[in-house]
Amino acid sequence: MSTCFRLAVVQLHVTKVKADNLSRARGLIKEAAAQGAKLVVLPECFNSPYGTGFFPEYAEKIPGESSQVLSEAAKESQVYLVGGERNSGQPVGTVPVAGQPVGTVPVAGQPIHLFDIDVPGKIRFQESETLSPGSNLSVFDTPYCRVGVGICYDIRFAELAQLYSKKGCQLLVYPGAFNMTTGPAHWELLQRGRAVDNQVYVATASPARDETASYVAWGHSTVVSPWGEVISKAGSEETVVYADIDLQYLANVRQQIPITAQRRSDLYTVNAVQEG
Amino acid sequence: MSTCFRLAVVQLHVTKVKADNLSRARGLIKEAAAQGAKLVVLPECFNSPYGTGFFPEYAEKIPGESSQVLSEAAKESQVYLVGGERNSGQPVGTVPVAGQPVGTVPVAGQPIHLFDIDVPGKIRFQESETLSPGSNLSVFDTPYCRVGVGICYDIRFAELAQLYSKKGCQLLVYPGAFNMTTGPAHWELLQRGRAVDNQVYVATASPARDETASYVAWGHSTVVSPWGEVISKAGSEETVVYADIDLQYLANVRQQIPITAQRRSDLYTVNAVQEG
Repeated sequence: MSTCFRLAVVQLHVTKVKADNLSRARGLIKEAAAQGAKLVVLPECFNSPYGTGFFPEYAEKIPGESSQVLSEAAKESQVYLVGGERNSGQPVGTVPVAGQPVGTVPVAGQPIHLFDIDVPGKIRFQESETLSPGSNLSVFDTPYCRVGVGICYDIRFAELAQLYSKKGCQLLVYPGAFNMTTGPAHWELLQRGRAVDNQVYVATASPARDETASYVAWGHSTVVSPWGEVISKAGSEETVVYADIDLQYLANVRQQIPITAQRRSDLYTVNAVQEG
Repeated sequence: MSTCFRLAVVQLHVTKVKADNLSRARGLIKEAAAQGAKLVVLPECFNSPYGTGFFPEYAEKIPGESSQVLSEAAKESQVYLVGGERNSGQPVGTVPVAGQPVGTVPVAGQPIHLFDIDVPGKIRFQESETLSPGSNLSVFDTPYCRVGVGICYDIRFAELAQLYSKKGCQLLVYPGAFNMTTGPAHWELLQRGRAVDNQVYVATASPARDETASYVAWGHSTVVSPWGEVISKAGSEETVVYADIDLQYLANVRQQIPITAQRRSDLYTVNAVQEG
């Protein structure tokens, strides 16, 4: 197993024209693969503007048009792919679809925490008005490492990252669309916190910022190392950022500051609640 | 119950002369009280240089000379006090001693995670060579709010802060001495992460930096708000920093971004392991 692979984050400029979003995404995935990326992450809702008013119109059944495009793109570019779209087949939020080089889309997780916040005069959003949360962790394996997926607001919950880390994930990816209030306050902090607390790589994929949209995304898709350093970071515009994920470096960090072995499991535990 | 109180962090310049450390600490506690502080936090090992070679010489029984000074200082200045010293009465690390306005020193917790790290060419330290870790959480109540105490390396463990938060602590204090490698990399990040993940105030108290010491402390004692903002921060020299802890503001943050209510206790839990 190689200890190093290239990750690409596509900070897509998402418009109201779904066909454009799909074709531009496909083109950027191809571009990323040409730069050596083996895993490509698209933003939350890469095929649709972000907003509860848009979700019913843009939602699709899975498999459907958008997941078909992802499947084909993964196959033609020979990459692993994480995208997010609304699934009209069930009343849940954004669904990360993980394309594989063989052209299948096997993972269909859901955000398990809905974005319901109300900062007076700044931002109010209630995903729960139109969506229900999922209840499954989204973990998938690649030949490089195990990957845990959270959607946007999920990143606020340390427990999810702790569980993913316990399950052996060495990379956490969060397709997400923070906004102009919580973006500057918390976007980078949360990523760096998840990375250093669990000694994992963390990547976020935001849509590009569109000041004319009803919901203005913060942008700044980022990749953070297990030492908590920002190693790649987009501005606000459409772009692809790259990071070389080095699992030997991750192992070194864990050896230097061995918090995993030092945890006091005799005093505290973080556990998944058993289903069924 | 008042919803606002003043916290002071004393970034003491710790020397090899214990009597000086004690008298200077006492003077700065008095100064802090004159500025309206109701809770004063001293650094880890405020009475002794930091280093395994110093610990046996400077360690005291509790009660002893240093805890007596803290007790008197708390009484004369009418403040709550958190200090840290080595307890020679048991083979554990730094002991936070919490003075009360009535002059008692009721809390004697211990660091539960020992500082054993090895970053080649940068910093190697093995507290476990001379110390054993404690096994008790350190929580104490004041008329203002409940306070959770961790020592230095304890701040790396998200679980401890999560437990304190579950126990109702609204302020976490970490007397600690990060160094010139981990200080710039992680000191502020860890504090801001604990604050925003648990929506609590976080305060750290470091010794002032002494470039001539065998262990050079990073300094930069800090107070962070529940929104994750640095609200007070020292430089590297001896100083007292102040922060007004506003529990109404904390309540507002928790209402605006209600992650506590939104946690998925049906999917994951963070628990203390029951003793006995």
